Amino acid sequence: MEDSYRAEGREEIQNGREDWRSSSAAAVDSMNLSVERIFESQVVPAWKSQLTFRAFCVSFVLSVLFCFIVMKLNLTTGIIPSLNVSAGLLGFFFIKMWTKALGRAGLLRLPFTRQENTVIQTCVVASSGIAFSGGFGSYLFGMSQRIAQQSDKQNANEVKDPSLLWMIGFLFVVSFLGLFAVVPLRKIMIIDFKLTYPSGTATAHLINSFHTPEGAKLAKKQVRTLGKFFSFSFLWGFFQWFYTAGDGCGFLNFPSLGLKAFEHRFYFDFSTTYVGVGMICPYIVNISLLLGGILSWGFLWPLIENKKGDWYPADIPLSSMHSLQGYKVFIAIAVILGDGLYNFFKVLGRTLSGLYHQLQHHNSLPVANGSSSSKSKEVSFDDQRRTQIFLKDRIPNWFAVAGYVIIAAISIITLPHMFPQLKWYYILVIYLFAPTLGFCNAYGCGLTDWSLASTYGKLAIFVIGAWAGAAHGGVIAGLAACGVMMNIVSTASDLTQDFKTGYLTLASPRSMFVSQVIGTAMGCVISPSVFWLFYKAFKDLGVPGSEYPVPYATVYRGMAALGTEGFSSLPKHCLELCYGFFAAAIVINIIKDAVPKRWGRFIPLPMAMAIPFYIGSYFAIDMCIGSLILFVWEKVNKANADAFGPAVASGLICGDGIWTLPSSILALAGVKPPICMKFLSRATNAKVDGFLQP
Amino acid sequence: MEDSYRAEGREEIQNGREDWRSSSAAAVDSMNLSVERIFESQVVPAWKSQLTFRAFCVSFVLSVLFCFIVMKLNLTTGIIPSLNVSAGLLGFFFIKMWTKALGRAGLLRLPFTRQENTVIQTCVVASSGIAFSGGFGSYLFGMSQRIAQQSDKQNANEVKDPSLLWMIGFLFVVSFLGLFAVVPLRKIMIIDFKLTYPSGTATAHLINSFHTPEGAKLAKKQVRTLGKFFSFSFLWGFFQWFYTAGDGCGFLNFPSLGLKAFEHRFYFDFSTTYVGVGMICPYIVNISLLLGGILSWGFLWPLIENKKGDWYPADIPLSSMHSLQGYKVFIAIAVILGDGLYNFFKVLGRTLSGLYHQLQHHNSLPVANGSSSSKSKEVSFDDQRRTQIFLKDRIPNWFAVAGYVIIAAISIITLPHMFPQLKWYYILVIYLFAPTLGFCNAYGCGLTDWSLASTYGKLAIFVIGAWAGAAHGGVIAGLAACGVMMNIVSTASDLTQDFKTGYLTLASPRSMFVSQVIGTAMGCVISPSVFWLFYKAFKDLGVPGSEYPVPYATVYRGMAALGTEGFSSLPKHCLELCYGFFAAAIVINIIKDAVPKRWGRFIPLPMAMAIPFYIGSYFAIDMCIGSLILFVWEKVNKANADAFGPAVASGLICGDGIWTLPSSILALAGVKPPICMKFLSRATNAKVDGFLQP
Repeated sequence: MEDSYRAEGREEIQNGREDWRSSSAAAVDSMNLSVERIFESQVVPAWKSQLTFRAFCVSFVLSVLFCFIVMKLNLTTGIIPSLNVSAGLLGFFFIKMWTKALGRAGLLRLPFTRQENTVIQTCVVASSGIAFSGGFGSYLFGMSQRIAQQSDKQNANEVKDPSLLWMIGFLFVVSFLGLFAVVPLRKIMIIDFKLTYPSGTATAHLINSFHTPEGAKLAKKQVRTLGKFFSFSFLWGFFQWFYTAGDGCGFLNFPSLGLKAFEHRFYFDFSTTYVGVGMICPYIVNISLLLGGILSWGFLWPLIENKKGDWYPADIPLSSMHSLQGYKVFIAIAVILGDGLYNFFKVLGRTLSGLYHQLQHHNSLPVANGSSSSKSKEVSFDDQRRTQIFLKDRIPNWFAVAGYVIIAAISIITLPHMFPQLKWYYILVIYLFAPTLGFCNAYGCGLTDWSLASTYGKLAIFVIGAWAGAAHGGVIAGLAACGVMMNIVSTASDLTQDFKTGYLTLASPRSMFVSQVIGTAMGCVISPSVFWLFYKAFKDLGVPGSEYPVPYATVYRGMAALGTEGFSSLPKHCLELCYGFFAAAIVINIIKDAVPKRWGRFIPLPMAMAIPFYIGSYFAIDMCIGSLILFVWEKVNKANADAFGPAVASGLICGDGIWTLPSSILALAGVKPPICMKFLSRATNAKVDGFLQP
Repeated sequence: MEDSYRAEGREEIQNGREDWRSSSAAAVDSMNLSVERIFESQVVPAWKSQLTFRAFCVSFVLSVLFCFIVMKLNLTTGIIPSLNVSAGLLGFFFIKMWTKALGRAGLLRLPFTRQENTVIQTCVVASSGIAFSGGFGSYLFGMSQRIAQQSDKQNANEVKDPSLLWMIGFLFVVSFLGLFAVVPLRKIMIIDFKLTYPSGTATAHLINSFHTPEGAKLAKKQVRTLGKFFSFSFLWGFFQWFYTAGDGCGFLNFPSLGLKAFEHRFYFDFSTTYVGVGMICPYIVNISLLLGGILSWGFLWPLIENKKGDWYPADIPLSSMHSLQGYKVFIAIAVILGDGLYNFFKVLGRTLSGLYHQLQHHNSLPVANGSSSSKSKEVSFDDQRRTQIFLKDRIPNWFAVAGYVIIAAISIITLPHMFPQLKWYYILVIYLFAPTLGFCNAYGCGLTDWSLASTYGKLAIFVIGAWAGAAHGGVIAGLAACGVMMNIVSTASDLTQDFKTGYLTLASPRSMFVSQVIGTAMGCVISPSVFWLFYKAFKDLGVPGSEYPVPYATVYRGMAALGTEGFSSLPKHCLELCYGFFAAAIVINIIKDAVPKRWGRFIPLPMAMAIPFYIGSYFAIDMCIGSLILFVWEKVNKANADAFGPAVASGLICGDGIWTLPSSILALAGVKPPICMKFLSRATNAKVDGFLQP
């Protein structure tokens, strides 16, 4: 769910960001000027000069920052909005600070160029991408003892507990493959096919706009706004911390809509992160989340709970997969698979038809995307100059192929040592198909901005899981295979996006590639370390109802169990319900695509609806409040909201996200919060008062 | 404390309001125009037409509103800021609404004049004044069983529990005397002596500015701001309510600065009322409160607590007057008396020297107040016209004297029936002196804006209490005498202020007088009723540490006990401490007056420092936050803060204040909040969790 959803979020946010860009780079666009004419006087630095020391220092700082944020999101709900705008703004801010400081000290030799900015952006995207594709919130943590115990199946012994060393090793052997797989194809995708890559294009516009005088002025204001909300969000997180001594304490458990609603996980939990996420995600995503929460926790679960003792035994613990919990997880899986499959075939269809057109009519964009074809005359100078720069620094194909083969070989040798259940020939098969799938995903993403990485990962779970079989550790094999597949496919699309950004900002493909390699290497070390910090600091990581329920770890393990053991282990009537929801997800998608867009945009997204099925809708309420704030703001002052909304949202997300760093350090150091803010019903309170004052 | 403090607050706020007025009536003042030239074309309505039905309807609504607010303030801390600006704004808003509605319906016959506005203002001031001078938070509630039990002295049986009937009767027989006492003197004070009456003048300026076009526009914006913060504050109060099932629950008990600080009553209690009060009160008042709180609860009480078992018995309840509680109350009394006495003599001195000058050099203002003397040429038209109107509608002296004598007679006959301890000759003596004291107070107030009503009240407590003696119910006699005295003296100064306002807005003295009579009558019914609602709804009214601790009830009863029984009942070493603090209060005042004003304004006010001695400094923290908000706002945008600060503050105060109406109705109806938000230390929380999940 997460990746495709994430990309989908990205796609729709795209519109918002385009607006925003248009206001910041208004001077450029409104006059219909060629962007490269503005920058014509600036010399494009040689590719090695684009790779500055300061750029990687800033990238490292930002990578750690975003890794914390993405990890927090991974471990709480799995919803990851596009953080490109924040990365762009913060990168700009840090480098500006750096150059100012050096300039004052008289040490500044190089001015800050947009190529350097692109290098930072690329490095940070590559690095923080690992935090997501590393599967710390899904397949990787799904192998752990803690998640396995919750599912209490016959496979409960099939575990591989996280450990810093093997996680770093695993990421190093699987993360670079995607990179080498797409390098030879970059010219075809960017120059020949002229794919759009909406996110990459938007990022490039953002970077270009930063380096025009008006853009820089606006960016400065946005950075200040971001800083303000960052501080507020950080301090609020700090304040909240004091009141969280013990379970069920603090603002995270504030029954703001009443105790009854709280029991059904309907409450505003004062999380600035998700208010910010709600401001970034499109309205329909937030509404879908809320609808999903109401449908499941408001109607479905209470109905199933009534069947307690009939459909499932009344005497097993609530967290058992054979009780209500099982229904929650498997129905969520059904919806996710239904939606995922529909979109897989949809994107595959468009990819194939696009390719067919492309090969028939050489070098023309298959899907009319308006901008580039209609403006072809005005931007021809741009195209010319960009293509020239893009083709100047080549990366030889033999280098890419050799790199792929060597890493694949290392990977095939080492991975079975980490996961004995994952035989070497499973890996070989994956690596034979991976470049094709990676190309498919990168191409589809270029057309639709929709990365299907997690769908390919799920495919691997089922195929490899079934091949290995329950008796031979199919669960672990499936989850590990998912990791291998997802990493290749996800990096493939992310990095082609980056090449598009580089193309539009005249950054050299070589410097992009080096930046990606360095970023990926950073990510392979930073992400497991950050996860390890969380894992050690928060002892109830992965426990349902806790601060970090890690919902997708349970869901992924559930899928692996389904793949290896079939439907036998599902509770009564669960399969029928799953069929129904699977079909419903597909039908809703068909209707959404069939009706005209002005109606279709009001039809909720099944995948978004499925997330609260398992964890409840408290975060959906946060996100809807974020939506509401943005909505009112847009009504009051549209230009202002467009220019500063993303900065406010980024500030809220980053501040709360970075607070998890000190908070986990405090937890590791054994410093416990002093106060518990507890919420009791009147009756319970009277009992407690009686107990405390005998 | 409260009255003089209240007036003092009013005095310093004066400056703030002058600024504010100057921005709203800027057009008038900056051009140095005569105000009455602007209004020259408008006919002044006859005095009877100034008394419209709608004016009294609006006055009634506002009286109820302000009565709730003043009562809430009375019963929580006794700090009552000047609400004149809110009354002015709201009065303007209601009448505008009324005239607009009538105008649309085609029923509007009379335009809204500033005379009518003055009538409303006067009526509301007279009515809500009773909520304060009625002593519901001081002498009157100090007679009750509940307060008497806390003081556990030999006088614990001397009680007179509140009851709606006798309270209304009592107020009716004592509240009108002040009115008749000052009526004959109004010409001397206003026309002959040309006393300044800063508050009354400021109110008149406000009303005048409302009726100029620019002023009306600004007022509209201010009303909108007020409305926004009113709603926010009201809804916040409503939200808080849900979490207050049981004692020690809810935001009012939020240990926002930690549990240790909470035990010493240092916490921000999320009360919008006191944040608003803090925005209205001068900075030095808020700082003094905080200093007083730190001095007493941070140092003094912990030190005295260490002597437990030595200075006072360790085995008596904490609330006993013979334990720490006694030190708190009596040291607070010492400071209040020291400050009160100093200012009594200071104002008396200025009054006498002023009078002396006045009688020597007939008809010239004794203290150079700048404005009227320096501008005498420009405003001579104003003066002429105002004097002419003011002298047109006379109120015969025989009417005033007859009124005074008749009401005094009724009062002398009925009061001893209500309070058998209060002999008829005590009352007679009070009534013989009262007009003189009333005149002194009105005159002093005209010079300094400082009403000493509560100091005169305390004088009555001691004199009558000592005269009656402990054996003959001196406590009740003293408290009742305080009520009689305070009501006369307080109304005398309030109503002379109103005459000044009327003089400056060309309102007829007759209509002012009628409005005052009606307002006072309203107040005599509304105030006891509102108090009765609080008394019935909140069963822990007057209990220390509860939501409504009514601090001054205890303090006044303490003074009465001191007056009748002497120092015998004080705990060990308390008398020495009291002498010290009494002297310190006087010395601080002397220093404050002796050093140049630019230093003097940084010296804290002893009377403000004494308030947290008894109830702790939580509200002082609220008020300092209010100060801080205003301070930052003024730094960022001074003009904006000056224009809208009072409106924001009024909105916050009124919204939360009016929430007490539904909240007390809910309490009366037995609707209890469903949730308790409890704050437990980590250790206690672990115990409670163990208790709840055995």
